[in-house]
Amino acid sequence: MTLRTREQYIESIRKMKAEAYMLGKPIPDVTKNGFTKLALRGIGSIYDLTRDERYADTLTRKDERGRVISAYCSIHRSREDLVNRVKTARLICQKTGVCTASRCCGWDALNALWHTTFEVDSRHGTGYHKRLRRYASMMQGKDLTCAGALTDPKGNRSLKPKHQPDKDMYLRVVDEDKKGIVVRGAKAMIGGAIGSHEIIVQPGTGFTEPEKEHAVSFAIPLNTDGIVQLVNMQPGGERKLEEGFDKGNVSCGSSESLVVFDDVFIPRERVFMNGEHDFATDVVTKFVLLHRAVLGGCLAGCGDVLTGAAALLAEYNGLSRQLSDRLTEMTYLSEALYAQALGAAHEGQSTPSGAWFPDSLLSNVTKTSVTRLPFEIQRIAEDIGGGMVACMPSELDLRSPRIGPLIEKYYRGGHGVTAEKRLRAARLIESMVAGPGRLGNLCMHGGGSPAAAQMGIRQLSDLENKKEMARRLADIS
Amino acid sequence: MTLRTREQYIESIRKMKAEAYMLGKPIPDVTKNGFTKLALRGIGSIYDLTRDERYADTLTRKDERGRVISAYCSIHRSREDLVNRVKTARLICQKTGVCTASRCCGWDALNALWHTTFEVDSRHGTGYHKRLRRYASMMQGKDLTCAGALTDPKGNRSLKPKHQPDKDMYLRVVDEDKKGIVVRGAKAMIGGAIGSHEIIVQPGTGFTEPEKEHAVSFAIPLNTDGIVQLVNMQPGGERKLEEGFDKGNVSCGSSESLVVFDDVFIPRERVFMNGEHDFATDVVTKFVLLHRAVLGGCLAGCGDVLTGAAALLAEYNGLSRQLSDRLTEMTYLSEALYAQALGAAHEGQSTPSGAWFPDSLLSNVTKTSVTRLPFEIQRIAEDIGGGMVACMPSELDLRSPRIGPLIEKYYRGGHGVTAEKRLRAARLIESMVAGPGRLGNLCMHGGGSPAAAQMGIRQLSDLENKKEMARRLADIS
Amino acid sequence: MTLRTREQYIESIRKMKAEAYMLGKPIPDVTKNGFTKLALRGIGSIYDLTRDERYADTLTRKDERGRVISAYCSIHRSREDLVNRVKTARLICQKTGVCTASRCCGWDALNALWHTTFEVDSRHGTGYHKRLRRYASMMQGKDLTCAGALTDPKGNRSLKPKHQPDKDMYLRVVDEDKKGIVVRGAKAMIGGAIGSHEIIVQPGTGFTEPEKEHAVSFAIPLNTDGIVQLVNMQPGGERKLEEGFDKGNVSCGSSESLVVFDDVFIPRERVFMNGEHDFATDVVTKFVLLHRAVLGGCLAGCGDVLTGAAALLAEYNGLSRQLSDRLTEMTYLSEALYAQALGAAHEGQSTPSGAWFPDSLLSNVTKTSVTRLPFEIQRIAEDIGGGMVACMPSELDLRSPRIGPLIEKYYRGGHGVTAEKRLRAARLIESMVAGPGRLGNLCMHGGGSPAAAQMGIRQLSDLENKKEMARRLADIS
Amino acid sequence: MTLRTREQYIESIRKMKAEAYMLGKPIPDVTKNGFTKLALRGIGSIYDLTRDERYADTLTRKDERGRVISAYCSIHRSREDLVNRVKTARLICQKTGVCTASRCCGWDALNALWHTTFEVDSRHGTGYHKRLRRYASMMQGKDLTCAGALTDPKGNRSLKPKHQPDKDMYLRVVDEDKKGIVVRGAKAMIGGAIGSHEIIVQPGTGFTEPEKEHAVSFAIPLNTDGIVQLVNMQPGGERKLEEGFDKGNVSCGSSESLVVFDDVFIPRERVFMNGEHDFATDVVTKFVLLHRAVLGGCLAGCGDVLTGAAALLAEYNGLSRQLSDRLTEMTYLSEALYAQALGAAHEGQSTPSGAWFPDSLLSNVTKTSVTRLPFEIQRIAEDIGGGMVACMPSELDLRSPRIGPLIEKYYRGGHGVTAEKRLRAARLIESMVAGPGRLGNLCMHGGGSPAAAQMGIRQLSDLENKKEMARRLADIS
Repeated sequence: MTLRTREQYIESIRKMKAEAYMLGKPIPDVTKNGFTKLALRGIGSIYDLTRDERYADTLTRKDERGRVISAYCSIHRSREDLVNRVKTARLICQKTGVCTASRCCGWDALNALWHTTFEVDSRHGTGYHKRLRRYASMMQGKDLTCAGALTDPKGNRSLKPKHQPDKDMYLRVVDEDKKGIVVRGAKAMIGGAIGSHEIIVQPGTGFTEPEKEHAVSFAIPLNTDGIVQLVNMQPGGERKLEEGFDKGNVSCGSSESLVVFDDVFIPRERVFMNGEHDFATDVVTKFVLLHRAVLGGCLAGCGDVLTGAAALLAEYNGLSRQLSDRLTEMTYLSEALYAQALGAAHEGQSTPSGAWFPDSLLSNVTKTSVTRLPFEIQRIAEDIGGGMVACMPSELDLRSPRIGPLIEKYYRGGHGVTAEKRLRAARLIESMVAGPGRLGNLCMHGGGSPAAAQMGIRQLSDLENKKEMARRLADIS
Repeated sequence: MTLRTREQYIESIRKMKAEAYMLGKPIPDVTKNGFTKLALRGIGSIYDLTRDERYADTLTRKDERGRVISAYCSIHRSREDLVNRVKTARLICQKTGVCTASRCCGWDALNALWHTTFEVDSRHGTGYHKRLRRYASMMQGKDLTCAGALTDPKGNRSLKPKHQPDKDMYLRVVDEDKKGIVVRGAKAMIGGAIGSHEIIVQPGTGFTEPEKEHAVSFAIPLNTDGIVQLVNMQPGGERKLEEGFDKGNVSCGSSESLVVFDDVFIPRERVFMNGEHDFATDVVTKFVLLHRAVLGGCLAGCGDVLTGAAALLAEYNGLSRQLSDRLTEMTYLSEALYAQALGAAHEGQSTPSGAWFPDSLLSNVTKTSVTRLPFEIQRIAEDIGGGMVACMPSELDLRSPRIGPLIEKYYRGGHGVTAEKRLRAARLIESMVAGPGRLGNLCMHGGGSPAAAQMGIRQLSDLENKKEMARRLADIS
Repeated sequence: MTLRTREQYIESIRKMKAEAYMLGKPIPDVTKNGFTKLALRGIGSIYDLTRDERYADTLTRKDERGRVISAYCSIHRSREDLVNRVKTARLICQKTGVCTASRCCGWDALNALWHTTFEVDSRHGTGYHKRLRRYASMMQGKDLTCAGALTDPKGNRSLKPKHQPDKDMYLRVVDEDKKGIVVRGAKAMIGGAIGSHEIIVQPGTGFTEPEKEHAVSFAIPLNTDGIVQLVNMQPGGERKLEEGFDKGNVSCGSSESLVVFDDVFIPRERVFMNGEHDFATDVVTKFVLLHRAVLGGCLAGCGDVLTGAAALLAEYNGLSRQLSDRLTEMTYLSEALYAQALGAAHEGQSTPSGAWFPDSLLSNVTKTSVTRLPFEIQRIAEDIGGGMVACMPSELDLRSPRIGPLIEKYYRGGHGVTAEKRLRAARLIESMVAGPGRLGNLCMHGGGSPAAAQMGIRQLSDLENKKEMARRLADIS
Repeated sequence: MTLRTREQYIESIRKMKAEAYMLGKPIPDVTKNGFTKLALRGIGSIYDLTRDERYADTLTRKDERGRVISAYCSIHRSREDLVNRVKTARLICQKTGVCTASRCCGWDALNALWHTTFEVDSRHGTGYHKRLRRYASMMQGKDLTCAGALTDPKGNRSLKPKHQPDKDMYLRVVDEDKKGIVVRGAKAMIGGAIGSHEIIVQPGTGFTEPEKEHAVSFAIPLNTDGIVQLVNMQPGGERKLEEGFDKGNVSCGSSESLVVFDDVFIPRERVFMNGEHDFATDVVTKFVLLHRAVLGGCLAGCGDVLTGAAALLAEYNGLSRQLSDRLTEMTYLSEALYAQALGAAHEGQSTPSGAWFPDSLLSNVTKTSVTRLPFEIQRIAEDIGGGMVACMPSELDLRSPRIGPLIEKYYRGGHGVTAEKRLRAARLIESMVAGPGRLGNLCMHGGGSPAAAQMGIRQLSDLENKKEMARRLADIS
């Protein structure tokens, strides 16, 4: 059994002592800092659930040797695997209420590279795929959490990489010898990096020949010399630094980091692309396909939690019946996302490498829906939540001997519901519409911008075929 | 080979000489009347395409004896069958641009009854399922088109069936003997009845014990004594009575009828439910589940045609590039419907009878999307189409020696596109946003009203489970 | 009293015997043709209502000499006049259920030219404004209906006017002498031309110096030699050719024409622009400002009728209470359009000529809403209307001795509502969602395309000012 | 000149030393606490702008004696005053970026009471109106900021006030003598209370005769014995306790409180309703009418700031041109709200008291739009903002010697834009989509819930009149 417990996972991260900063100061122990502790619990939940027999079908796979491994370290080898990828996303979001991005992105990156290294080797006679297989096997055996990294800082977005005044705006190879390469640059918005063992880096966009120094991919432990993590401060993130229920979701958290590579040495066996710019677009595309489809599952899962929180507060307020239509609409929106993701997965195809990917067009369609519908879910949650979600007392008020009794009296709900229950439900809603776990945060830019997804749809819309349908029916020669 | 040709199909319908009226007059020959002729061509296209090898995977199945049969006469025996059901819908709509409702509804009715007769027999020891199997085998062997009928006139919708002043507002058994039953009533909005060999009748809603006379299901040829069809006049239907391109879609048509049962005798071997009111809801539900999911495919297919027509007119106007964003949005909307339908199909389940049905919740979700997104597709088509779609000359104007040359001059498009081409494309758009094939017609009430689908979502939304998710994350005991 | 009666108006149009064609044939008498007769009734309703004291405040004005004139022939001389312009639009649409475009467009054209002739004279020392005042006085005295004409055929829309292979794609001056000018070209989608005494022609877009032959404006009776009207065939227009209720709106109709100018002589006193290309954009802009704002009133009025029709059918079906939410949403949408139009009118400004125009930004905003919200109104109407709106028998069926009794039985509503009442209400809805009076027809291209309105918003959005607000609050220097 | 300076205002509030708590602790000096200090600056901005000549037309009025007074203390005496009410709201939100609710609510409450006291006196022969006039004169002369209070805690919302187990769930009179009344209860979500001199209390809903103890209205200084304010903790409110730009809006803040009345004595001359339950609905309705209309101006103003912030970040990223369409859409949405508010104001009517109120139907329509469109504005802002708005470093990171240079390097924008500028713009967006100033907070529950506004539309939709329109056009007798 290769599956770690949550405690083993957390301890393994603590021991790494990766260099990381937050609010301008180093984080000496990620299990002590309230913010990072909560993020580790989010990822840690995956470890716990993976060992829970009820979820074995969804969360575990067998590797080629028959070992039970975490699905998060697996290659998608069938349509069913892709569908399970979506179901995993929904399940974990239902259980954590947050984006546990790192394991997801690492999973997607592993699959994208599985395919691309195979293709690069076929064309260029390189040996990347074999390396990657070894890496995957190690990752599976140790049940690692690997962050996935694409997004470069990009500087002036209207300029191409080769025209940037500072070339480091796209991560690049600055030196190379027999043993390995040296990389410089940064990757932004890396979900869950602070709770990851390794980081799998891919190009963030396509590159041309003169830009081939940027066409680089590798995996490396996050405590490697020269890697510096800056953990970002989310809206409402301050509350996570403290104990108490004002953070809304008191069980799990998320995190994002800027990960800086300050001339970091990458040994050759960890390099999966190095200058093959003609495949940079391919690996990005495969990664985002997975991500764009899967987001339908993530947002459905988080939508479920938010719907549940809204239903709870409606019940506490004695308004379950009156708000039934609105709750039904929330359910509709979450399920519409989920159904689309399932459709994209179902229509997936395998590649020569053996890895499966969801349908390109439907993945972009799902992502487009994901950038729209969750905002309506949030809107209805704020409607149901009432003015209380917009303004309410804090736990410190509730605990105060002077103020507490007033709150207990005036915030009591129907049928003996205590003020604390109502406040907890309201804070959970608040955190999902205006805090770190707000759906709008999860849905908009993961897997690329809305514009990128629309571009994908445009390219795949096959208008010529549709024009031909119209011509035939209108008898236009 | 049991598959008929289009010509064989049309001739077989012509020969039936079912009693039918339109615009207050009898239709002596359905192949002569412009309106019904076009409707037959719509259904006839299915026959042609079914014999086309390129579509064999989608449009044919094998029966238990290994005969190749039309998918439209088959029972869904796997997840793949359900997915193909959706793909069939999209394909046929792409090829015809219309709702060829009869074969679809007959198909769905057959499957619903396959399941329900099995269940009724299990509980009541009746012999319906065996009868239905014989019927299905006959239908397959003769490659019949069977209309499916649910909707009763309903009279005052705020009253239950048993309180209606006129009991015939819900079709019912008025007499019965050993040989069979006699039914009276009507079924409304029966798509494609005029082009169908038989009609498969089901209850239109659930019934209680005192209403059991309405709990009746049977199949019967449409030229049976006492059956009268009133073919409805659609918006723009007048144009179908004439030749020419002003009807927009010059290749295929659709039709709907009120089918009146004026004390019609149904022989016992054609009766599949007779008083088992406890299963009326079950058979309705199974029918609409299929229909609600499949509509995602239908509307995607019709959306494709409309997108193609809009792209064509944009091209003729020299505006393809400027309108690219809007065309992409049309594609997005169609594909979102399709993806949801696929998701609903993928999550389908089998029943003890061996028939598969799509996921209940996701079917209702798909249907709900189907009642919304196509209106946005129409809106964008009107935007792209420009003022021309709102007002344009007719073919008679174009053919007139006095007026024709003026139209030829002033309606010419860019790059030598003739006025006729532009007018044909514009009329096709017009017919799909404001004519008989308008998407809004297809999408709103097929498979039940939007309110019924929302009710379905409410019942399946499992709020208790979602509340529990919220309680756990907010630590509410 | 200068106000004509409806009968006087209709007779005056009949006598003109303008050259007009429909379905490839000449229209010898516009009061005999079912289609044009109905269109005349639409415009004629304005005449009747104008003489009705209850509407005097809205529909009449006083001219400079104190004569009571039709508001439709007046110049907007105050904020109150602009607001009344919007209220007039709503009232007339409530009373007719259709777009009575000609009087509206003539009214807007008169106001636009009032301003622009004043400006042209100021810069170029021409004498257009005095001419226009004489024209306006004559129009007021005779209570004329004048169509307004902007839209040129445009040919290949990706080419500028000067690059069109056929220069006539934009109406232009082809000859000129002391007495007047000769024009050639066509104006498309001219609402109500068949029921108009005169046509007021303006440029359809801005022109540059080399294109100045197109910068021409004039007014001329529609029975002038060389003018040919081609009346377009609307969706459902065929029904208007016959008597009976299947046309839905049995009281009023609308029409649109292509008006061809086949080398038409325009006497100098009727010319209001002739080559002053530097003002072509100005006059177009002023016209569309009025139109874009006023459309909010039109669509609110038509929305009211459609809401009423939906409420009626809901009542007949015994579902008023259940559909109350949806009916409320329809009201909301109509009123939102109206409120925006009022806002645009209220913020109007006067020009040096004394004519007032609505606020530019808010007019474009109103128009943008007008291209969106009515489609949702239609959608809800189709939802409420039920399957019946999608398919129902015709009046001929109802009148047939064989079929009629069946329809009378099976289409009866609750509480003794006859089938005819239900069918009439359903046909009215049908005609407003899928017929000639469909909201989507009225709203999309009147006053220019959605893209043009969005361009207007972009140009007026003053982002620099908004950036400064943000900089100040974020303390960015 | 009765207009105070900002400093005078702030000092006057400081001196009051009202009893207030936050995070469980007393606030000894509201000008020292970072959170309340910022809230005072928000309201203080109104004082500054009122003395600025450029805004005199909007922000000042003359009282009956000709004194220049703050518009915020005035009675609306004309249509123009109502329109200015909307323009004031937009202006102040543009300048502060926040809801400065207290002065607004006090203003609206004053106007509502002006009307209702007049009506109550007319029916009951009481002397409330004269008292209120004296109060208004004092408020004007001292240029007071008065919070407006309606919302009661309400307990179990499915129970009527008289059935609540704890009657204090609705504020009520518990004792009374010649000198005055004693009230007990609480008012929730009182915007700006911490920065207000007085609080004007009104009933929160309609009451029946047995509930008349709740039908009470009065005004009282907030430092009166027995009044306790609990300042709520907003999402992101923690940042306001500290200096620095991470709060986004560094210039102004907002606040909301629960204001508890723990047996507070109100002298008779400050009581404006006491048991006249038949007017409780009237005063609530008048208050919310104003509020519902005016919100269109507020959200337009905050929308302007957010649009500006998004435009700024787009510019810093070198993407102004590519994002032009999305920025235009943001402008459209803000202006659509504004136009509706203007429409509602324009259609306002005066009451016998001389006070004007906006149109009831259009106010509810505006409010309904306000509960929808701002969420789309937020959505687009998140789209434009990019991943950076979802996660970014804090100011403490930027100031850190170790981390700062990395941020300076990797967060630099195009054309020499510093990281700090980009972070400031991004934090401003963040605070308006996921912080205390998020539009969704401002728009949803101010002036009552979306459901209440929809109920208002339903009651005023006059379906009978609309049905009559339909009947006439379809010739239904």
